[in-house]
Order: sequence, then C-alpha cells, then structure tokens
Amino acid sequence: MRTYDISLTISPDLPVWPGDPEIVLERFSKMEEGDPCNVTKISASLHLGTHVDAPYHYLNSDAPTIEQLPLHLLTGRAYVLELPNEVDLITAAVLEHSEIPPRTRRLLFKTRNSAIWAQQKRQFQPDFVALSPDAAEYLAHHGIRLVGVDYLSVAPFHLPAPTHEILLKSGVVIIEGLDLSQVRQGRYTLYCLPLKIAGADGAPARAILIGV
Amino acid sequence: MRTYDISLTISPDLPVWPGDPEIVLERFSKMEEGDPCNVTKISASLHLGTHVDAPYHYLNSDAPTIEQLPLHLLTGRAYVLELPNEVDLITAAVLEHSEIPPRTRRLLFKTRNSAIWAQQKRQFQPDFVALSPDAAEYLAHHGIRLVGVDYLSVAPFHLPAPTHEILLKSGVVIIEGLDLSQVRQGRYTLYCLPLKIAGADGAPARAILIGV
Repeated sequence: MRTYDISLTISPDLPVWPGDPEIVLERFSKMEEGDPCNVTKISASLHLGTHVDAPYHYLNSDAPTIEQLPLHLLTGRAYVLELPNEVDLITAAVLEHSEIPPRTRRLLFKTRNSAIWAQQKRQFQPDFVALSPDAAEYLAHHGIRLVGVDYLSVAPFHLPAPTHEILLKSGVVIIEGLDLSQVRQGRYTLYCLPLKIAGADGAPARAILIGV
Repeated sequence: MRTYDISLTISPDLPVWPGDPEIVLERFSKMEEGDPCNVTKISASLHLGTHVDAPYHYLNSDAPTIEQLPLHLLTGRAYVLELPNEVDLITAAVLEHSEIPPRTRRLLFKTRNSAIWAQQKRQFQPDFVALSPDAAEYLAHHGIRLVGVDYLSVAPFHLPAPTHEILLKSGVVIIEGLDLSQVRQGRYTLYCLPLKIAGADGAPARAILIGV
C-alpha cells in the first residue's frame, strides 16, 4: 500500500489568501550562535496551505469550531475525482456528468489547480477552479460529508460566501489547499488531521492518502 | 474500532516551554463586525502542544528537518506502555523490567504526566517524567524507531541535550506532548501527522490512536 502526501509544504514562499498575514518563520534559538537547540516561531493565518474550515469560519458564533469536527469524517474511504483541464468552475451539471461512485462520502477534486503546486507558483492565482453554489447543494444532497479541493478555497474567488455556507450548514467538512498532482483518480483511504485548536475557525492540517 | 484523540488542545492556556513565546490566537476577521468570515492568526513556537522534533532540533545543520521525516515511521503499529506513578525517570533499568512486546517499533509512554493534562494544569511542570540518556540508548539499540511521551519533552528538564541527541542521531522519531490519559496500555495503530513545514526543527501535530 502506497502512501501519498497530499499536503502543501508550508514556507514563506507559499501563496496566502489576499489580505491574510504572510507566513513568517523565525528561528529564535540557534545552535550556531551557542543556543542548546534550534527552535522556530511561526506566525500565520490558520487558513494557510492545506487546511480545514470549521463551520464557525462562515456561520454564526454557535457554529462548531475546528476542535469539534469529528475525526470519523476526517479519516476513512475517499474518492479522488479528476476533472479535465477545461473545467473552470465545478457546477452541479459538471457533477451530474462525472462518474462519482455510489455511496461516496468523501470526495476530493483534482483539477488543473494541482498543476499550480507542481509548478511552485508563489503568487496567489485568483482564477482557480472551485465549486459553484449549485455544486455545493448537489454534494450536500447526495450524501457527501467531506469535500477536498486543490486550491486555497472551495468557493470561487469572487463569490466566496454561498458555497461555504451551503456546505458548512449541511455539516460537510471542507479541506482546502490539497496538492493532488501526484495522485490519480480512484479510491483511497484519507487521513486528514488538522491541529486541535480551541475555538478556532479553521486549522492547518497534514493530509495523506493510502492506496487501497 | 475506536479512535482515540491523543493530541493536546492548543489554546493560550496550554503551558509552553520556558523561554518559548506564548501561544497567541488573534481573530483578525470578525463576522460580528461585518467581515465576510471569521479568520484567526496564530503565533507560537513550533514546539507547542503535541509536536514532533526533527533531528535538526538538536543536531547540526545537515540533520533532517521536519518535512523530511518519513510518514511510514509516523504511522503504523504502536504500543502504549503504562508506567506506575512512582516512576520519576524512565531509565534503562525501568525499561528492562517493563514488558515491551517483541518487535515493537513505535513506543508511547503513559506516565503520571498524562494526569497533568486531565487536570488541565496551566503552569509548566518542570518535574515531569522523561527518559534518561541510558533509556534513549536502550531504545535505540532495541529497534525502537519512534518514541512518544506525555509531557513537553522527551528529556528531563535539567538535562535536555543527551536524550534528544542519542535518539535523533539514531533516527528515532520523537513525539512530545501526548495526552494518553484516556488510553490504556496495549496495541494500537498510530497516525501522527505533523505539519509539513520547510526546513523546520519541529512541527505541531495531530495524533490519533485506533484500537486494533
């Protein structure tokens, strides 16, 4: 069984969401300067790189926060659906014409976005492929409990709220910032483990796929 | 199969290593103030809460950094060894008298430290249970490839370097800050997924055990 690391590498070179703070890594304890060990401080948005959105990211203050998301949704069987490079927006119509296996509960979308990571583009790309609101409705109504996308938002850049709200209100877990460039369409076992941060709207995660 | 979350909850209340920066969580985008969504910034040492040490934490600049640690060591069969509350220091003698199953490769120590987490003690506790240098030698020589401990360092507070150096030079992965208070001695499958941070000396992780 092969393990695929589908997480982005966190570094100051990773693009961040416009308006979010830059990723700062500062090694404040340095062995070469006589300190006993090397220790680094990080400063960043919780929505950096590969990360999970909590319902509280887009819903009201009663919505679940990241440490409350059930691990049984974040781990288990998942299907990677590869969409052609021509798909600019994942709509309900696109989903209807895709062959998503019956009883799929966790669905990861491999789109032309994944090539952005393979090319190590440092600049934020606003024309990324994402899900339209009607695609979010479609997924929620077809029993999908977890959605993963391969750029930094599940929603189109110029229309962020509806897609997030529909998914999060339906209890669908959202993983953003996956790198699926090394993974083919098919069935896997997913382990996506976000940091357990009290009361937070999201958290960075390490995510892997294990071939089945 | 039951899943156990053995990760600490990250919050400003979590004790940090003396001298490390405090954990700061600042929600800079607030829906109640008219922002489109809630977004939080974190600022903290990479060695906060449940985390993994890279060899570069205590070795020279050629040593592997956190994103280079092999996932096949961080995931797989693990044994939780519960030590009596009387054990103040895990020595080679303690290990010789413990019944570690043959062919154990990943070993997590449940000590009286885990009660500190169950009691939610906010202050750093310098008298935590840790591994002596001869225990580190013993483990490295007995085929252990991953060690997990239930307080913030694998080494005693007043003697940090030797235990770290012996383990890291031997390629043993170190997980620190586990909460094993809800887990019994026995065999499990471990998934410990640290954030993938370029060139870093360590990284926070989410760690789970699955009953076998």
